[in-house]
Amino acid sequence: MTNANPTPRHTAATGNKAASRRQFMQFGGAAALVYAAQGMQAAVAAEATALAPPSGKQLTLGVASYSFRAFDLDKTLAMSKRSGVTHINMKAMHMPLDAQPEALHAIVAKVAAAGLKLYGAGVIEMSKESQVVQAFEYGKATGLSVLVVSCNPALLPLIEQHVKKFDIRVGIHNHGPGDKRFPSPQSVYEKVQSLDRRVGLCIDIGHTVRVGADLVQSIEKYGDRLYDMHIKDVTEATAKGKCIQLGRGVIDIPGMLRALVKINYPGVLSYEYEAEEKDPLPGLCECVGYTKGVLAAI
Amino acid sequence: MTNANPTPRHTAATGNKAASRRQFMQFGGAAALVYAAQGMQAAVAAEATALAPPSGKQLTLGVASYSFRAFDLDKTLAMSKRSGVTHINMKAMHMPLDAQPEALHAIVAKVAAAGLKLYGAGVIEMSKESQVVQAFEYGKATGLSVLVVSCNPALLPLIEQHVKKFDIRVGIHNHGPGDKRFPSPQSVYEKVQSLDRRVGLCIDIGHTVRVGADLVQSIEKYGDRLYDMHIKDVTEATAKGKCIQLGRGVIDIPGMLRALVKINYPGVLSYEYEAEEKDPLPGLCECVGYTKGVLAAI
Repeated sequence: MTNANPTPRHTAATGNKAASRRQFMQFGGAAALVYAAQGMQAAVAAEATALAPPSGKQLTLGVASYSFRAFDLDKTLAMSKRSGVTHINMKAMHMPLDAQPEALHAIVAKVAAAGLKLYGAGVIEMSKESQVVQAFEYGKATGLSVLVVSCNPALLPLIEQHVKKFDIRVGIHNHGPGDKRFPSPQSVYEKVQSLDRRVGLCIDIGHTVRVGADLVQSIEKYGDRLYDMHIKDVTEATAKGKCIQLGRGVIDIPGMLRALVKINYPGVLSYEYEAEEKDPLPGLCECVGYTKGVLAAI
Repeated sequence: MTNANPTPRHTAATGNKAASRRQFMQFGGAAALVYAAQGMQAAVAAEATALAPPSGKQLTLGVASYSFRAFDLDKTLAMSKRSGVTHINMKAMHMPLDAQPEALHAIVAKVAAAGLKLYGAGVIEMSKESQVVQAFEYGKATGLSVLVVSCNPALLPLIEQHVKKFDIRVGIHNHGPGDKRFPSPQSVYEKVQSLDRRVGLCIDIGHTVRVGADLVQSIEKYGDRLYDMHIKDVTEATAKGKCIQLGRGVIDIPGMLRALVKINYPGVLSYEYEAEEKDPLPGLCECVGYTKGVLAAI
């Protein structure tokens, strides 16, 4: 998200500055405290990356902390930082949904101290009303700009009400062949397009390809409501496809990145690297390197 | 080296098949035993990578085992394999120059069993005659196609004699600002251009940039004798530049890879990742990913 992204180096595209400013104004409220706390770390991070060649396209890179589900928060933050991403999207095992505000604030401070930008959380299940209420209170307490959600479609009106009340975006996550509610980006878009425009998509590119949908077309068609992305590669474009490092699988990553650059995607590419659960860092680093390599060359 | 590279997927460029066949004939002798032993592993590796998107350019990726100087041979092979490279260039701590032939054969077998292709060794110091003799006997015993060498220029005639006798190529390694003999690719080329054409260069791209030489121009001008490459990025283009992950430093990696594709470079890109000595795998994986990403996009 661009309001989690104050340095020009990490802005998705130079031509997108006006949109960035609009979104900063729109979503600045809840997040302002977090980013104030993160100011010094952001400056350090900007300096550390100043040597990177100025050529190529820029997109914001993050990690879905589910990639580190076998590790505690401290190790998760250390490995995330080392991989070179700037942003993080928290899963509940690292930032419990039922934690008290004080505990959540301590986690927010720890993320900032690690030099990372906390911008979202998920995937959060919303199958009953109380989960909707809890998740938005949680998002408010932690200054999130997006909640990545798996939900009962019947709850969409309630979710929309909360989006309006809390001014936090929702990206509904497509879960592929096994998901009867939201298998593909199209199935999400059809159900959210009539709602407040802050209700949108988190495209999981692995599940998108596993269900046989066209990833590039999905980005181009639904990009106006694209609020987060789960990035991985998969071994095959069927339900049997398993997570693998970018470039080792069947997904056309350069095509996807060209599409994201084309739509001036202002959000984060969050690696959800589900392989090698007990030692995911090398694979995650390969994914980050692959993305940066493509962006430097297109 | 193309003779260490039997699967089309890993051949540097489709247009280079005739040159590959020539080199296979030229260097096939000593290496034949090694590659016979590696046949099964090569087939497994080819299958494992068959899912990668067919688009983009292909170059052969390897690792200089110096990157793993803090680890024993078993760990070096396991980490090299995991990084996704196919080839390995051994440093003496993993394959001692003074080892007996039986010990060397055991190492060769271990590399093959790990599913990697042993194609070279180095950097090997040749400051006296006995070191020249030893290194070529070592190269013969292990089936190498290239020795990466730092040498006293007065020994070049003796080195040339051994190149002719053993039919093993030599890549003289440029060591940057601190090296009075061979700081730059140009300084190597000037001293080898009148010799047997199997005496050539190993361009260390970090040292090339640290000494202020033009990397792309060096590849294009001296490519006809380019037999190995040490790949890394550096934090600055001066003597103070330190090794860092590809894309995080100042080297124009896409420009370098475009130049290598343009000259149909048939050799190996060997990562000599000198940073993070105690835990180099994540950084190496980022380098491999970055290279693959650039190659997929150009």
